[in-house]
Amino acid sequence: MPEPIIFYDIPGNAAKDKAWSPNTSEAFLRFNLNIKGIPYRTVWVEYPDIAPLSKRIGAEPTTTNPDGSGSPHYTLPAIYDPNTRTAVAESLAIARYLDRTYPSSGPTLISKETDALHMAFVQAFRDAYLPDAGQLFLPASCTQLNPGSEAYFRRTRETWYNAKLEDFAPVGSEKRAQHWKGVEKALHTIKEWLEADGTEKMNVMGDRISFADIVVVSHLVWMRLVLGPASEEWTDVMKWDGGHWARFMAGFGKWETVDVGTEVEAEV
Amino acid sequence: MPEPIIFYDIPGNAAKDKAWSPNTSEAFLRFNLNIKGIPYRTVWVEYPDIAPLSKRIGAEPTTTNPDGSGSPHYTLPAIYDPNTRTAVAESLAIARYLDRTYPSSGPTLISKETDALHMAFVQAFRDAYLPDAGQLFLPASCTQLNPGSEAYFRRTRETWYNAKLEDFAPVGSEKRAQHWKGVEKALHTIKEWLEADGTEKMNVMGDRISFADIVVVSHLVWMRLVLGPASEEWTDVMKWDGGHWARFMAGFGKWETVDVGTEVEAEV
Repeated sequence: MPEPIIFYDIPGNAAKDKAWSPNTSEAFLRFNLNIKGIPYRTVWVEYPDIAPLSKRIGAEPTTTNPDGSGSPHYTLPAIYDPNTRTAVAESLAIARYLDRTYPSSGPTLISKETDALHMAFVQAFRDAYLPDAGQLFLPASCTQLNPGSEAYFRRTRETWYNAKLEDFAPVGSEKRAQHWKGVEKALHTIKEWLEADGTEKMNVMGDRISFADIVVVSHLVWMRLVLGPASEEWTDVMKWDGGHWARFMAGFGKWETVDVGTEVEAEV
Repeated sequence: MPEPIIFYDIPGNAAKDKAWSPNTSEAFLRFNLNIKGIPYRTVWVEYPDIAPLSKRIGAEPTTTNPDGSGSPHYTLPAIYDPNTRTAVAESLAIARYLDRTYPSSGPTLISKETDALHMAFVQAFRDAYLPDAGQLFLPASCTQLNPGSEAYFRRTRETWYNAKLEDFAPVGSEKRAQHWKGVEKALHTIKEWLEADGTEKMNVMGDRISFADIVVVSHLVWMRLVLGPASEEWTDVMKWDGGHWARFMAGFGKWETVDVGTEVEAEV
């Protein structure tokens, strides 16, 4: 019986939302682990603790600091697998690690021959979706963090984007309306990809689930979290493209389960 | 014995270059047909004749006019298949048509389960490559067209980009140097996708050829055509990424064969 993988996640500040941190990358990984049925337990990590934790468990920095300093930048999601004594950071790298290390646990999410196509998919999705979605949802994400993370998140994001979070897309502004149009257009583009060959597909690869689906559903979960499932804006999104995104998300409902988790302090 | 498919292509003005029109989309299709080994014959079409020809053979407009008028826009490549009496325009649509209609002719280039991933790949490649490559190579493409096409190409492109072709990237300018950096970075990004899983792949899908490879090699053929194979700039490109692109292109050399073709007038 393998030991559960440790999944490091960022907690939200509300009990009901702790399960889904306002960070898309963590949603990627939670879906990944749940779909594959790999045992894991969550450890909650506040933003300022990510770098020290990563160094301690041996996870590599995933990029350089977006502030332009060139210094290494540590990000979640990260996992530590006690069975192989391996730490891995970054969603795609973790997905590949799990596919290779536990080949008989659930579906392969990034098949070898679609690895480069998946890289392109992630790039194309981000280019289409994030310029507008980031402006709408980063400020709302910030309000859902605990105080230590909130201050860290605000300081770093306001530096990277060179603007106050409150000025990204103020409620009622023309800017906000434009960003909403951008988000709707981005999802419509994905829908066009799904039916470009004349068949109406629910998943990117048709009959099988792949990492590309997780990319999309994770961003939708993020949107639902920051808007609230009963909000007018979210209700609208669920009607876009003839209700396609509502049906798509419904297919992933059974993989939204979470464990209670423990605080990272208990691990140190 | 099936009749050869008619492949409508735009001719260059030099005898040696007629084989490869200065239009990437046609290179896509020529590789596609050659790799699959489907019999075809080329009919040369000048730019102003594309719309009347498309209407005559029954090819649909592929997009709306980039001038913003919203009017239908007809483009090459297009094919007419006398065996099924079908006209098809646009590279991906033609690739799908050939995969479905001639499933036993050569490799399937867009497998059903990678169709949406291919859409994302084409989008991500274009977003990364074309903003800079277009500025460098569209002016050079224009000089390789016959007079009727040249005037049409100049008028439309200068309207779409709102600039004289000569001002896109003048030789020796800082602007040109920046666009070259952009092109190099774009190809390097593709190289990173190819090795993201830790294996060094030559083709996007590893051991098999797919439409994604044709996208990349067609743009390289376009670049070689407008720069000239003996130019210093092309020699540099062939050294990028440790010579990867030279090796990649070498693998496609055997599919660069062309037929002599006939002028479209003879068909009317």
